[in-house]
Amino acid sequence: MRTIWNAGYRYGVANEKSADPAAIRQLIESELATFLAAQKKYLESIGSELVPAADALVSFLLDGGKRLRPLFAYFGFLGAGGTHSQEVVRACASLELLQACALIHDDLMDGSDTRRGKPAIHKHFEKLHARESAVGSSVGFGQAAAILLGDLALVYSDLALHQSGINTAVLPNVLAVHDEMRVELMAGQFLDIYEQTRSSHTVERALTIARYKSGKYTIERPLHFGAAMATTDKTVLADVTSHYSSYGLPLGEAFQLRDDLLGVFGDPELTGKPAGDDLREGKRTVLVAMAQESMSSTDIKEFESLFGKSDLDLSGVEKLRTIINETGAPTHVENLISDLTNKATKALDTPSITTTARQVLSDLAIIATKRNL
Amino acid sequence: MRTIWNAGYRYGVANEKSADPAAIRQLIESELATFLAAQKKYLESIGSELVPAADALVSFLLDGGKRLRPLFAYFGFLGAGGTHSQEVVRACASLELLQACALIHDDLMDGSDTRRGKPAIHKHFEKLHARESAVGSSVGFGQAAAILLGDLALVYSDLALHQSGINTAVLPNVLAVHDEMRVELMAGQFLDIYEQTRSSHTVERALTIARYKSGKYTIERPLHFGAAMATTDKTVLADVTSHYSSYGLPLGEAFQLRDDLLGVFGDPELTGKPAGDDLREGKRTVLVAMAQESMSSTDIKEFESLFGKSDLDLSGVEKLRTIINETGAPTHVENLISDLTNKATKALDTPSITTTARQVLSDLAIIATKRNL
Repeated sequence: MRTIWNAGYRYGVANEKSADPAAIRQLIESELATFLAAQKKYLESIGSELVPAADALVSFLLDGGKRLRPLFAYFGFLGAGGTHSQEVVRACASLELLQACALIHDDLMDGSDTRRGKPAIHKHFEKLHARESAVGSSVGFGQAAAILLGDLALVYSDLALHQSGINTAVLPNVLAVHDEMRVELMAGQFLDIYEQTRSSHTVERALTIARYKSGKYTIERPLHFGAAMATTDKTVLADVTSHYSSYGLPLGEAFQLRDDLLGVFGDPELTGKPAGDDLREGKRTVLVAMAQESMSSTDIKEFESLFGKSDLDLSGVEKLRTIINETGAPTHVENLISDLTNKATKALDTPSITTTARQVLSDLAIIATKRNL
Repeated sequence: MRTIWNAGYRYGVANEKSADPAAIRQLIESELATFLAAQKKYLESIGSELVPAADALVSFLLDGGKRLRPLFAYFGFLGAGGTHSQEVVRACASLELLQACALIHDDLMDGSDTRRGKPAIHKHFEKLHARESAVGSSVGFGQAAAILLGDLALVYSDLALHQSGINTAVLPNVLAVHDEMRVELMAGQFLDIYEQTRSSHTVERALTIARYKSGKYTIERPLHFGAAMATTDKTVLADVTSHYSSYGLPLGEAFQLRDDLLGVFGDPELTGKPAGDDLREGKRTVLVAMAQESMSSTDIKEFESLFGKSDLDLSGVEKLRTIINETGAPTHVENLISDLTNKATKALDTPSITTTARQVLSDLAIIATKRNL
């Protein structure tokens, strides 16, 4: 299978390392590792008790991950006419620290105990506490540690960005995009937890949540973030930013829809989460909202009696999958993903985005929405 | 009683509004109100479901508070030779949003249900959920809402700072101080929750925690933050920064020791927390560590059987207070507060800090450490 993760693929032909996503991903990896090593040293200088906190972040952050947000930011930068520099890679890598905050807090709020096949941060610290037979509640300690490590990751994302060494002339615009992206993310997360408390749901509301919580935050805003690093020319920036929205918004939606499907039908080996985890957590996704609109009243009853049960076993998961499949919603969602991805890719057809970036963004569209992620 | 909160007191004589802490506090109040109103409007534009979140932050932030951190930042700015501007007040006000994040997450981690005489954020949303008989766990919703509102407040503190309009030339230095302050805060918080899980405690460790979690973050770093806004001259900045540390570090310690005393002996009317709340939460403060060093083994046994009991009643609180009083630790702590405050005030005796700022900082030292805060 052709893959852009094999360093040198296609882009290597022109020997343009800066246009090779695999090479850039490696640079992002290495910047993250350097940053986290320095931070660990600093925390250790305050107190050795902080080493487990530093180690947990290192292991959480350097343990795979597609680095989609940094990659979109980087190619957003390149597409807006920027030229490769280590400083820019560093700034892009900071988005991965923000994502760490989002995941750590999200897992805690959802009571989701596994992440990338390993214990989530709150579970990890809960286990450390129990293993040491420490004083107080292991669960409480795990929760508090996850709240603080999420906060620390959020602050680190700022620190990494501010220390990146990017041109101070672009800083105000970059910070503005960064802030807006984060407000949107938190707003989306809040809409999400609120939605879980409602007794009725609509596809429209599920779409809004997905857009703010994930779509804009994963693709559109990182592209804008990158563009803001490339130029301070208002007209150029406004132009490329609007093209990035035309590409990023539908793609973000497709990305989230793929995530919905994986949360219900995904292979645990690939998702790093137990089978049907979203069903166990009762996630009100677009897929679920669509499925519910087409369920018979008997199916709805059975669905609601199992959906969100924290001790749901595999046979329960299978029952829910069958009900969802019978509505035809998964096929509908697959078609939507195709349509949205095509729409996104078409939006790249503009001279406002550099040719090299257009090629890579077109490939990243496939990466972000493909089945076996 | 003389108070600097009566606008016009002393500083008014010279008609120097910018040197009047009461007037500056009002300006900070008004900048916060303006900022939060704009943010509420923005959240509302995403979805009306976000209004309760916006309202909770408004009520949390505009409901009293001494604004110590913004004031120290402002007078740190003035003391380093800065001239008053609305932009600087705005930047200083941003620290109050960071403090909101710290308090919201702290209350959640400590299971502390009251803040300024009202329900803490997690309790507030727990109650909203229960009142609406919404789907799912009220406690879980309250916790998730508090995690997200804390995150949002943290992002808002960045946004308020970045939008403040302060000179872009000073921005890199300001951001660096701001980042360091926040890493220290999170590190201190982590040390704190870790300490609660230990079976033995020392005064030294309690002091380290207090220094990072509260002392540096409340006084020294806000002063440095202010100084970084006043000048980019490295020599001047290094000089004034070092004087601010000589003043801020002992004062920060005194501030935290006062907080320890208030947490055990404070009047609920004034603290906004139930009587003896720190005893109920089992906070391992410097005061408690000092008291424990001088307890008889019988007292230690009784102390440990009651300390940290979440259902501790008033008679239990009284018993613990008596045991602590009998060790002489409160008197010792009072003396320490005096000594540290004097040491701090003496450090102001330098031409590196402007005369006006010296006067105000000397008064703020009293404010930050006095009994009936």
